[in-house]
Amino acid sequence: MIDINKDLIQLLTDRIEAGQDSELRSWASDLHATDLAEILDQMRTDAASYLFRLLDTDVKADVLIELDEDQRANLLSGMTAEEIAGGVLGQLDSDDATDVVAELPPNKAEEVIGHLENDEQASDIRDLLAYAEGTAGAMMAKELVKVQSEWTVTRAIREIRRQAEELLSMKHLLLGAESTRSKIAELQKEEGIVTILAQEPSEKATMLMERYDLVALPVVDSEQKLVGRITIDDAVDSIIEDAERDYQLASGISEDVESSDSVITLTRARLPWLLIGLIGGIGGAYVIGWFDIKENAEMALFIPLIAAMGGNVGVQSAAIVVQGLASSHINTNNLLRRLSKELGVGILNGLICGLIILGVTLLLNFGTSLSITVSLALLCVIIFAALFGTFVPLMLHRYKIDPALATGPFITTVNDIIGLMIYFAVGSLISGLILG
Amino acid sequence: MIDINKDLIQLLTDRIEAGQDSELRSWASDLHATDLAEILDQMRTDAASYLFRLLDTDVKADVLIELDEDQRANLLSGMTAEEIAGGVLGQLDSDDATDVVAELPPNKAEEVIGHLENDEQASDIRDLLAYAEGTAGAMMAKELVKVQSEWTVTRAIREIRRQAEELLSMKHLLLGAESTRSKIAELQKEEGIVTILAQEPSEKATMLMERYDLVALPVVDSEQKLVGRITIDDAVDSIIEDAERDYQLASGISEDVESSDSVITLTRARLPWLLIGLIGGIGGAYVIGWFDIKENAEMALFIPLIAAMGGNVGVQSAAIVVQGLASSHINTNNLLRRLSKELGVGILNGLICGLIILGVTLLLNFGTSLSITVSLALLCVIIFAALFGTFVPLMLHRYKIDPALATGPFITTVNDIIGLMIYFAVGSLISGLILG
Repeated sequence: MIDINKDLIQLLTDRIEAGQDSELRSWASDLHATDLAEILDQMRTDAASYLFRLLDTDVKADVLIELDEDQRANLLSGMTAEEIAGGVLGQLDSDDATDVVAELPPNKAEEVIGHLENDEQASDIRDLLAYAEGTAGAMMAKELVKVQSEWTVTRAIREIRRQAEELLSMKHLLLGAESTRSKIAELQKEEGIVTILAQEPSEKATMLMERYDLVALPVVDSEQKLVGRITIDDAVDSIIEDAERDYQLASGISEDVESSDSVITLTRARLPWLLIGLIGGIGGAYVIGWFDIKENAEMALFIPLIAAMGGNVGVQSAAIVVQGLASSHINTNNLLRRLSKELGVGILNGLICGLIILGVTLLLNFGTSLSITVSLALLCVIIFAALFGTFVPLMLHRYKIDPALATGPFITTVNDIIGLMIYFAVGSLISGLILG
Repeated sequence: MIDINKDLIQLLTDRIEAGQDSELRSWASDLHATDLAEILDQMRTDAASYLFRLLDTDVKADVLIELDEDQRANLLSGMTAEEIAGGVLGQLDSDDATDVVAELPPNKAEEVIGHLENDEQASDIRDLLAYAEGTAGAMMAKELVKVQSEWTVTRAIREIRRQAEELLSMKHLLLGAESTRSKIAELQKEEGIVTILAQEPSEKATMLMERYDLVALPVVDSEQKLVGRITIDDAVDSIIEDAERDYQLASGISEDVESSDSVITLTRARLPWLLIGLIGGIGGAYVIGWFDIKENAEMALFIPLIAAMGGNVGVQSAAIVVQGLASSHINTNNLLRRLSKELGVGILNGLICGLIILGVTLLLNFGTSLSITVSLALLCVIIFAALFGTFVPLMLHRYKIDPALATGPFITTVNDIIGLMIYFAVGSLISGLILG
C-alpha cells in the first residue's frame, strides 16, 4: 500500500503542470486501481482529469468505479458520451457499468447507451436500470460467465465450467472434494444451492452470502430462471456500508460523512440530532416547570442521573433489537416474547441500580425522602426505557421503516422527557405521602 | 432457508426420543451445515449430541465450526480425543481445525493432536497455535492448495493451477482476461500482488482484502516466504464481528450478546454502562449542589438540555474519529489538524444551536438572564464536547487501546458533568454581572 498524503499530491500536481507525461504514466502503471482512485479523489478536478486521461483504458475503468461519487461525476462530465461508452463502459461488468450510467444526467445516459458497440451490453444495462434500487436485481451483474471471442472451443468450455463452479460455495471449491468430477447439476443438489429472487431486498442477498459462505449468489426470476449473479466483493462493500450507516445513526449522525469531509458537511450531518436534542431539552424544561421546583429544589440534584439513565437503557435495548433484526434472530411475530424478556432485563437492571442508588444516597446524606424518590423513580425509568427501546424499532421494522433510526435521537429524547415525568410524579407522590 | 422455530425444535426432540434415526438422518441430509448448526444451538445438549452423532463425518465437521462456542464446547466435551481427531478434525482446513483445538482444555488438545493420523496436519496446527491471537498468522490456513491422493497427476496439476489463481483477485478471474494464458508469476506482477506479514494484525488483513477486492490473501514471513492464506469467508466473518462490537460499544453494551441470550447474560452485558451512568449521575448531583440551586431554582429547568447536548456532541465526534481510524483516513500524526477542524464544526454547531435556543427561550418568556445563560453555556458545552470527543479516541488509539471504548459510557458521562459545570459557572457569572 502506498502512503497517500499531501506531499504526494503536490508532487504529482507539479509533474502534471510540467507535462511529464511518460514519467507519470510509468509511475501509475505500478499502482493498484484502488490506490489511484484515492489519489485522484484528493486532487483538484483539472489535475485529476489530466492524470486520468494518461491511464490505460482497462485501468481507467477500474479506477472510475473506485472513485468517490463527486469526483467521478466531475471526470465524467468532462468526457463525451462516445468516450464514456468506448473508453470506459466497454471494460466494465454490467453491474458496474449500470452504476456509472445511473449517475449520469438522463439525456447523457441515453447517448452513452446508444454509443455502446456491444448490443448485448446495452440491453443488459437497460435491464438492470429497470430494477428498483435496493433489490438484489439492482445489485447483480448479468454476466454469468465471460467467454472471449478469440478462445478455442475447448478453452471456452473449460472456462465456462470453471466460472460456473464459482457460483458454488468457496469452501467446497477450496476443499477440492469431488467438485471437478461431478456434474454441476449434482453439485448444486449436493450443495443445496442457494438462490435469490431479483425482486428481493439486497440486504437479503448479503445475508445469504454471509450465512452460507458464498463467493457468488445466483439471482433468479419468479420462474426460477437464472438472470444474473452477485459476487462477494459487492456483498462486502454493502456489508461495510450498512454497518457504517447503522453506526452513524446510533451515534446521531444523519448523513454518510467521513472525517475528511468539509466543516460545513460535517456540521450539517450532525445538526439534525442536535436540533431534536434542543426540542427535547425545551420539553424537559416544561416538565420541570410543572413541578414546584422552588419548594423542592433538592429534586434538581438528580435530574441529570434520571435523564441519562433513561437514555442509556433505551439505546441499549434498541441496539439489541436492531442487531437481532439484521441477523434475522428476531422477527416481529414474537413481539410479546421479546417484550416480556426485556421486562425481565429491565426489572433486574432496575432493581440493581435502584438498590445501589438508594444505599449511596442514604450514605451520602441526601435525606430519606429524596433517596427513596430517586431510587423508586430510577427503577420505573429503567423498566419503561427498556420496553420502549424494544418496542419502537420493532414497530418501525413492521412498517418497513429502518429500525436503526430508533437507536439515535428519537429514543434518547423521548426517554429523557418521560424519565423526568416519572421522576417528578414519584417525587410528588412521596412528598405527598410524607406530608400527608 | 429453513424456518427455525420452537415447533421445529420440539418436533426434532420428539423424533430423537422416539429413536427415528433414519428419518432424522434423511431430513438432515437436505440441510445446509449452517442451518443444522443453528438448530443444534437451540437444542438441549443431550438431544443436540444425539442428532450430531447421526450426521455424516464431513457434515459433522462443517456443522461443528458453525456452532456457538458454548454448544461446541458441550458437544466436544462428550467426545473422546480419538473421535475428535478422526471424526472431525481430519475433515477441516488447518485454520478451522486450529480454532477447534484452541478451545479444548490444554491436556485434551494435546491428546487430540497426538491422535491425528496426518502428521502434516498435526504440525500445521502446532504452527498456527503459536501465532498470537489477533494476528494475520492466527487467522490464516496453511493449505495453499489442496490435492487429494487418489487424483491423477494431470488432475492434480489442473487443480493446483486453479487454486493458485484463487489467490489472485476475484475481479481478474471473473473477467477472464488473460489469466489462464499467462504464467502465475506474470499474473502476480501484473496484478501488483498484495501480501501480508504473519505478525501483522488481522484487522490489516481484512482491510487489504476489502480495499483490493481479494478472495484470498497470501500470508508471508519476514523473508517473504509464503506461509499460508486468508480466505474471504473468514474476512467477512471478521468484518461483521468488528462492526457488531463497535456498534455495541457505541450503544453501551459491554459483552458480545445476542437477543437470544438469557436475561442474566443480557443484564450483565448492560450493567457496566449503567453503573458508570450512576457514578456520573451522583457526580452531577454534587456539581448542582455546589451551586445555590434554592436561590436560582429556574436554573434547574435547563439541566436536561445542557447534559443531553454535551453527551450527544461528544458521541458524534468520537464516532467520526473511530470510523476514520478504522478506514485509515485518520492517523494520530495529524492530531492538531483534526482538532482545529473539529473546533470549526463545534463553533458552527454551537452558534447555530445557541442562537436558536436564545430566540426560543426569549420568545417563551424564560427571562433574559436565564436565556442568555442557557445559550452561552450551550455554545461553550458544544465546543468543549466536540474537542473532547475527538481528543479521547485519538489518545486511546495512540496508546494502543481500542478507540471505540470512547464512544460509549466514558465520553457521555464526562461530558454530562463538565457540561453542568460550564452551565452553572456561566450562570453564576451572569447573575453576578446582573446583580453586580
